[in-house]
Amino acid sequence: MKHEDRNINSASGSVYENFADKLQARIDKLGNPTVMGLDPLIEYIPEPITSYINENCDDPAMAAGLAIYEFNRRLIDATCEIVPAVKPQLAYYEKYGVHGWEALRQTIEYAKRKGMLVIADGKRNDIGSTAGAYADAILGRTTLPDGSVKAMLGADCITANAWLGIDGIEPFLKICRENGKGIFILVRTSNPSATDIQDLRLEDGRKVYEAMADKVSEWGLDLVGKCGYSSAGAVVGATWPEQAAELRRRMPKTFILVPGYGAQGAGADDAVAGFGEDGKGGIVNASRSLMCAYKKQDLPHEAFDIACRQEAVQMRENLRKALAARG
Amino acid sequence: MKHEDRNINSASGSVYENFADKLQARIDKLGNPTVMGLDPLIEYIPEPITSYINENCDDPAMAAGLAIYEFNRRLIDATCEIVPAVKPQLAYYEKYGVHGWEALRQTIEYAKRKGMLVIADGKRNDIGSTAGAYADAILGRTTLPDGSVKAMLGADCITANAWLGIDGIEPFLKICRENGKGIFILVRTSNPSATDIQDLRLEDGRKVYEAMADKVSEWGLDLVGKCGYSSAGAVVGATWPEQAAELRRRMPKTFILVPGYGAQGAGADDAVAGFGEDGKGGIVNASRSLMCAYKKQDLPHEAFDIACRQEAVQMRENLRKALAARG
Repeated sequence: MKHEDRNINSASGSVYENFADKLQARIDKLGNPTVMGLDPLIEYIPEPITSYINENCDDPAMAAGLAIYEFNRRLIDATCEIVPAVKPQLAYYEKYGVHGWEALRQTIEYAKRKGMLVIADGKRNDIGSTAGAYADAILGRTTLPDGSVKAMLGADCITANAWLGIDGIEPFLKICRENGKGIFILVRTSNPSATDIQDLRLEDGRKVYEAMADKVSEWGLDLVGKCGYSSAGAVVGATWPEQAAELRRRMPKTFILVPGYGAQGAGADDAVAGFGEDGKGGIVNASRSLMCAYKKQDLPHEAFDIACRQEAVQMRENLRKALAARG
Repeated sequence: MKHEDRNINSASGSVYENFADKLQARIDKLGNPTVMGLDPLIEYIPEPITSYINENCDDPAMAAGLAIYEFNRRLIDATCEIVPAVKPQLAYYEKYGVHGWEALRQTIEYAKRKGMLVIADGKRNDIGSTAGAYADAILGRTTLPDGSVKAMLGADCITANAWLGIDGIEPFLKICRENGKGIFILVRTSNPSATDIQDLRLEDGRKVYEAMADKVSEWGLDLVGKCGYSSAGAVVGATWPEQAAELRRRMPKTFILVPGYGAQGAGADDAVAGFGEDGKGGIVNASRSLMCAYKKQDLPHEAFDIACRQEAVQMRENLRKALAARG
């Protein structure tokens, strides 16, 4: 179950398993193309956790970090045999400063120990050595002043924004190739103002997001795994199922990360619209609908993890049905 | 000198000074439109600092954080009466984990105490509440589990990427309006592969980066300060001076952040090409050429701060001459 040893620890030049293959294998094993978003706003954390920690920790910022980690840990325990991956949204950890960053590190370590793959959702973007620093920080390892080398976060995969072109993506692709890591690049997002730039029409007839899709498809070619999909994937919003189907035709080998299921409004049929004809090559994110399931179910708040598990099972069934209905 | 009290601390609804006005006033006072990038790769830090800290700190990750802060602190001391602002590049702090994040927090606090404005270069981008979490984390304040409120980083300004459109920018604009903060949005970057997406031609004749410029210009209209420029500014690469001049005509009220001076290759004439006709509304970043000036000058490495100061004075003179030559 523990996959960390396959990713980290080797300076021997040994070949790491392709990220897309690892992800697809885990999706296949659990029969569930879901990633659970871990976006731990303090307001989402059930009162029994925050009040216990407030009573036992004098430093409110540290209490925030401890509460976030405890919340995540129990959500991971409740879902690690159902859900193949987690996606911590970095903004919600940065919001709590150094203690938030420590909670992020602990969450990633714990999720990996429980066999889950970790997609660090940071939408990072910069060029050259700066993009390399992000890759080291989030996916790779850092050389310290005494010459020792340490993985700081050790996530399996990152999300990125390619407005700067390949210069900003290549440092991530390098670590994908060399260490079996993955990347999902924003192609078409599901928010209303995605039209501001992404939907503009180019003189060659393509929309800007289609030009981005073509680039992402091309960049990922040498990262296509045995599963037929690439470790350099794309983020494609679920509220635009026609676009998702078009983009699948345009990027036949690109793994697609679909945000927007559940609380953000898209249903299971929309969410799988961008999957391949083989029913693979896609993973659907749900954050609030899983984390905050306890707010909707008739269970005491203490049982937030059970509520999350029930909701995750329901989501898995919905996605299975939607994939089966596609035939 | 200390400007923190004007930015933070008030829940009274009082009006904060416009960020562009604060930045332009400080540029005018020092006669220097420079921002010093603080991109503290361990390799940049002079050996006397790293060896002293290695000898006195057993934890290599903590030693990295301490070395970064000590390096930055002395660079700030050496330049705070010459250079109006600093721009820490977040990737280089994230690379050193929680200790890097703590060094970032301390660096921002120290720079503000010394009267410098702080532009947090994170190129953040996301939508809705997630963009709001980044805004809280980097510019604003965070509500903790006990109900207390604390500024985690308290930077004056952030860099952002607007691929997602206004949905991803509005949460930052809100804090700009309400708390006198600033934002610089990527418009045209100076790296070779900026052509991949930014330079594509739209059917209406504009290039994609020009469409982005039009959006940035529009979004910033209600943040134009008394100085005539907006707190919602743009990043425009210095190695493309013709584009910078065109973009200035296109975005007459947009404050422009120009990266790429010095080590990245652009000279002073190129760097000021996007300034307004009044010689204002622009600021030029230099990182490595200032931080690592000691590597080029005939001074002992212990005197890295003096080398940085000399280089900053030289850069100021070069920019003054370039602005004067424009007439």
